[in-house]
Amino acid sequence: MPIACALEMIHTMSLSDALLTLAFEHVAAKTFNVSPDRVVQAIAELGSAVGSKGLVAGQIVDIDSEGKNVSLAELEYIHVHKTAKLLEASVVCGAIMGGGNMIDIERVRNYARCIGLLFQVVDDILDGKTAGKDLVSDKATYPKLMGIDNAKKLATELVAQAIEELAYFEDARAAPLYHLANYIASRQN
Amino acid sequence: MPIACALEMIHTMSLSDALLTLAFEHVAAKTFNVSPDRVVQAIAELGSAVGSKGLVAGQIVDIDSEGKNVSLAELEYIHVHKTAKLLEASVVCGAIMGGGNMIDIERVRNYARCIGLLFQVVDDILDGKTAGKDLVSDKATYPKLMGIDNAKKLATELVAQAIEELAYFEDARAAPLYHLANYIASRQN
Repeated sequence: MPIACALEMIHTMSLSDALLTLAFEHVAAKTFNVSPDRVVQAIAELGSAVGSKGLVAGQIVDIDSEGKNVSLAELEYIHVHKTAKLLEASVVCGAIMGGGNMIDIERVRNYARCIGLLFQVVDDILDGKTAGKDLVSDKATYPKLMGIDNAKKLATELVAQAIEELAYFEDARAAPLYHLANYIASRQN
Repeated sequence: MPIACALEMIHTMSLSDALLTLAFEHVAAKTFNVSPDRVVQAIAELGSAVGSKGLVAGQIVDIDSEGKNVSLAELEYIHVHKTAKLLEASVVCGAIMGGGNMIDIERVRNYARCIGLLFQVVDDILDGKTAGKDLVSDKATYPKLMGIDNAKKLATELVAQAIEELAYFEDARAAPLYHLANYIASRQN
């Protein structure tokens, strides 16, 4: 590798290492009024979402899939790992830090999984509406793999599933999450 | 940047991100029989040692100093941040996990700082003994900056300081750390 590339890599890696480390350090050092066992649980959750079974895995598979034929299962793997897992961890960490019990936490986790995938499906549907973008790009998308009607049907099912998870909670408390799911489903851009 | 470089960077960064994340996740998820507040404290300590005020800072300054004139203060900065901080965190995390109080922890921290720097100084002294290595390399070293005699004197002072910190502890319990300091000071290669 040319020396200029190597130096740029070292600088970029150092920056990413510093920021990634800061995230964990910050949660550990700057979380107040939360019991330590919940802080530990949140850090473990975050670590799992970002590491080799989470974000990193999705990123690698996504990069390596460029220009290749991607199956629906592979597309879902990429979206779940590259995007949805961190969204899931964000929601779950909120429930952990907020004092939720195990059932509360698993309910919001399921909610988050639905809206994480929903976000990607809607994104693909919207991209498909940008004239020609779908045809020019090599990237696999839900409309390309299952057709636009089935993609829309999937989006509708995901919203319904997400909302069903929220039924477990008090309406007033679940309202923001309810509206978030509908917002993601209905956005036009 | 050429595409091949970029792809290699992404793969290397992903690997380093995965491993770094795994370290934090592991401490959070796999530490047993230690109170959670101590686990949190250890994670904060580790984060501080590895991040932008620790290992990353030392690495960046070291790389950017290649081929330039480096002062004694800059050399010490590089060694402290690139190597000694993580060694310090390792020792301190041991004290935290092992149930040490604040004074115990600060004593071993000071001990670790001494042996961290001692390690580097002795390394430089030993490298200087390898015929010609000192003259050929551009790298700043303690013997080059302060002379071999003063470098040896510094090493002796650091060992003495390290051992003084251990005097606070029960002899039998401090013995391994005592012998470690002497080992570092007396190794010939």
